[in-house]
Amino acid sequence: MGHDLLIYNALLLTLEPESRPWYQGYVAIQGSKIAAVGQASGIQNLPNATEYWNAGGSLVMPGLVNTHCHAAMTLFRGLADDLPLEQWLHQHIFPGESRWVDYDFVYTGALLAAAEMIRGGVTTVADAYFWEAGARQAFAEAGLRAVTAQGVIDFPAPGVPDGSDNLAVAREFIESGRRSPDGLITSTLFCHAPYTCSAGTLQGAKALTRSHNLPFFIHLAETRQEADQIRHQTGLSPTAYLDSLGLLDEKTVAVHAVWVDETDRQLLARRGVKISHCPESNLKLAAGVAPVAELIQEGAIVGLGTDGAASNNNLDLWGEMSLAAKIHKVVRQDPTVLPARQVVEMATRQGAQVLGLEDVTGSLAPGKDADLIVLELRQPHLTPMYDPFSHLVYTARAVDVQQVMVQGRWLMRHRELLTLDWQILREKVRGWAGKIMPGAAGFFQGMADQA
Amino acid sequence: MGHDLLIYNALLLTLEPESRPWYQGYVAIQGSKIAAVGQASGIQNLPNATEYWNAGGSLVMPGLVNTHCHAAMTLFRGLADDLPLEQWLHQHIFPGESRWVDYDFVYTGALLAAAEMIRGGVTTVADAYFWEAGARQAFAEAGLRAVTAQGVIDFPAPGVPDGSDNLAVAREFIESGRRSPDGLITSTLFCHAPYTCSAGTLQGAKALTRSHNLPFFIHLAETRQEADQIRHQTGLSPTAYLDSLGLLDEKTVAVHAVWVDETDRQLLARRGVKISHCPESNLKLAAGVAPVAELIQEGAIVGLGTDGAASNNNLDLWGEMSLAAKIHKVVRQDPTVLPARQVVEMATRQGAQVLGLEDVTGSLAPGKDADLIVLELRQPHLTPMYDPFSHLVYTARAVDVQQVMVQGRWLMRHRELLTLDWQILREKVRGWAGKIMPGAAGFFQGMADQA
Repeated sequence: MGHDLLIYNALLLTLEPESRPWYQGYVAIQGSKIAAVGQASGIQNLPNATEYWNAGGSLVMPGLVNTHCHAAMTLFRGLADDLPLEQWLHQHIFPGESRWVDYDFVYTGALLAAAEMIRGGVTTVADAYFWEAGARQAFAEAGLRAVTAQGVIDFPAPGVPDGSDNLAVAREFIESGRRSPDGLITSTLFCHAPYTCSAGTLQGAKALTRSHNLPFFIHLAETRQEADQIRHQTGLSPTAYLDSLGLLDEKTVAVHAVWVDETDRQLLARRGVKISHCPESNLKLAAGVAPVAELIQEGAIVGLGTDGAASNNNLDLWGEMSLAAKIHKVVRQDPTVLPARQVVEMATRQGAQVLGLEDVTGSLAPGKDADLIVLELRQPHLTPMYDPFSHLVYTARAVDVQQVMVQGRWLMRHRELLTLDWQILREKVRGWAGKIMPGAAGFFQGMADQA
Repeated sequence: MGHDLLIYNALLLTLEPESRPWYQGYVAIQGSKIAAVGQASGIQNLPNATEYWNAGGSLVMPGLVNTHCHAAMTLFRGLADDLPLEQWLHQHIFPGESRWVDYDFVYTGALLAAAEMIRGGVTTVADAYFWEAGARQAFAEAGLRAVTAQGVIDFPAPGVPDGSDNLAVAREFIESGRRSPDGLITSTLFCHAPYTCSAGTLQGAKALTRSHNLPFFIHLAETRQEADQIRHQTGLSPTAYLDSLGLLDEKTVAVHAVWVDETDRQLLARRGVKISHCPESNLKLAAGVAPVAELIQEGAIVGLGTDGAASNNNLDLWGEMSLAAKIHKVVRQDPTVLPARQVVEMATRQGAQVLGLEDVTGSLAPGKDADLIVLELRQPHLTPMYDPFSHLVYTARAVDVQQVMVQGRWLMRHRELLTLDWQILREKVRGWAGKIMPGAAGFFQGMADQA
């Protein structure tokens, strides 16, 4: 019996452990799943299928996994940059959030984020924000795989005017949509940080996710100020403090993990805590450089994240790969740390592990869902090619992704979005931008519509 | 009398000092030069012209200036990565150069580099390599503005089998093509480094460029090893050593300037030495982080460079802008250093100053040559827009450049290269790649031609 779809004549990177690039590689897809991968020296040696798609020598690999995002913040992209962290947060981001963020803001911003991420080869995103049901709806419409996490914080937040309701809102979010029927969407929780949530809130939120066997997200040790404050209040590092509350286990995802010393790193690794590394955000906000090479040495699983577009300002995992591969070299004064292949694994298979999705996505293997991307190689900046992994990290860019498939469904072909209507979305975003900054609607594209 | 061409309805960034973005901006072009720039509230208010081009709200700005490149090394792109510097240089780059580099290698590699740079909005490049006449020919064919510098080093090099001939070869290079008739190409010299050229070679080369009033390029204080070695040999820092030889003046371009202390920085600024900052290369090779914010504070003029594709591995100045804006924030623990606009200026007007071309290019002003680029803004990752400079640095990418003009001539329109034939060039590169790494020709695109 034949497969539904056979993608063949590809430079195939399965990203399975120890796998090597296959020329003339193929991926056989049955329904939503990968049925087989392999290599064929000619058409006559290919498995049977209903539909054949000649990749024409393009590179086929697993879709990228963005382990940390605040998708809705695309609507604040570039609103305030190059400012001290406190001024950025308290004069721009928090006031903007309290004034503007509602269900439609989050839904619209997450659709925009989905459009950008699909165009950049992301097939799985872990998102964290308020009104997260809006993001859940947006990702479902876009066809992305998503772990959506409702934000929990101990002061009034969008959709949670009374901070003491935060766990009730969180429970409602989980129970209203814990798993989507197709399994693409998971609903869980994100505690903002150790310094913005009480011990009770942290433990309550973790208990909720634990009872449903869900991942639990938290910003951990992002800035030196946070580390100093927690140590002042508790006598412990942020990591040790969370451990004292029983929050550290293999379902906890620690985002940032910049200010973690050797003891902290050993603790994180021993507890099986997963790490989301967001280097562009950490640099742009001057938070610091996470000791990722050291965390990996201790045995921690590390994925890459873009963070939100207000602190990055894009959702491009290729930029994160490029920066992750370089920044740790210079900090360690060692050009051999985080070699290209390891970084590609962080953006794919290890990213899936961070989210607990390693049985479903992150590599191309029979039985996993068909989440894959196709890159066009015949371009000047990718020529010549001696090592595909080197190119993916050091020269490829988001726009080189031509096709994107999630669960066997094409979300983009020949760079055309198939699940989202960009023209309609753009008008919706223009409306929001004009509210957020009067004049911005004309600023960013009003000119295009005259003359 | 009307102008030859009027580009109108643009979001116009002239990059003149203190200039503000203009909506409904226009650029009037007469022959090879900018005749006028301005803003018009309607078509009836536009200057007369023979040809009108509606930018449709796209962003128009000066072309980018790449202040340091080894263009031919595109043919070594990704050949060896993630290695210790000495191993990379002595086991891969130097042997590869001595085995393969000839006039055709340099010509072909520079054509490939030109294709990549034009597609990324570079209109001016300062290049430095051996057989540099090959690069000069390639840039002339591509229509790029280029400062081509013949490499000078005290051991046998491609095209200079006897190191003691290096200054004679250098003189011949300058005199065979000091200025091209259209003024687009300048021919000058590049001394590899203080540790690979004797005092006599350094002074001889500088005397040659000085006698022709040409810029003089040198890698300076790139690695800690270099700084240690020069100090061991001379008792001086690399910067002080070059000063003791009389090499530092306003026509000298110091590339890298990573290991420069406060005294060195003050000396560089006082002498008017120009700085080429290549952050991606410095990080990837773990050389260090140049103290650029401090150099600028001292008054130095700093431009951005990509370095060669063997140590980067791309020629994308957008990536350099993004990294330059972020890396100094984290190193200084201050998110306000190198704000977006300053970084865009480094990639345009200040880059032109570094090369001594500030009267000709680097901003859009009447009397300067018409070197400009056009970016398409209506894309998810550039939406919304509250601040164009923020977008250029933090979210725009090379591929957003749709049109490129040098000296009034379009080199790319709608992303189609007009001066280079990519199909023919690709075959030529494939031939070289197959020689450099047998199997690589099939590796990078052979698959595409079957089935």
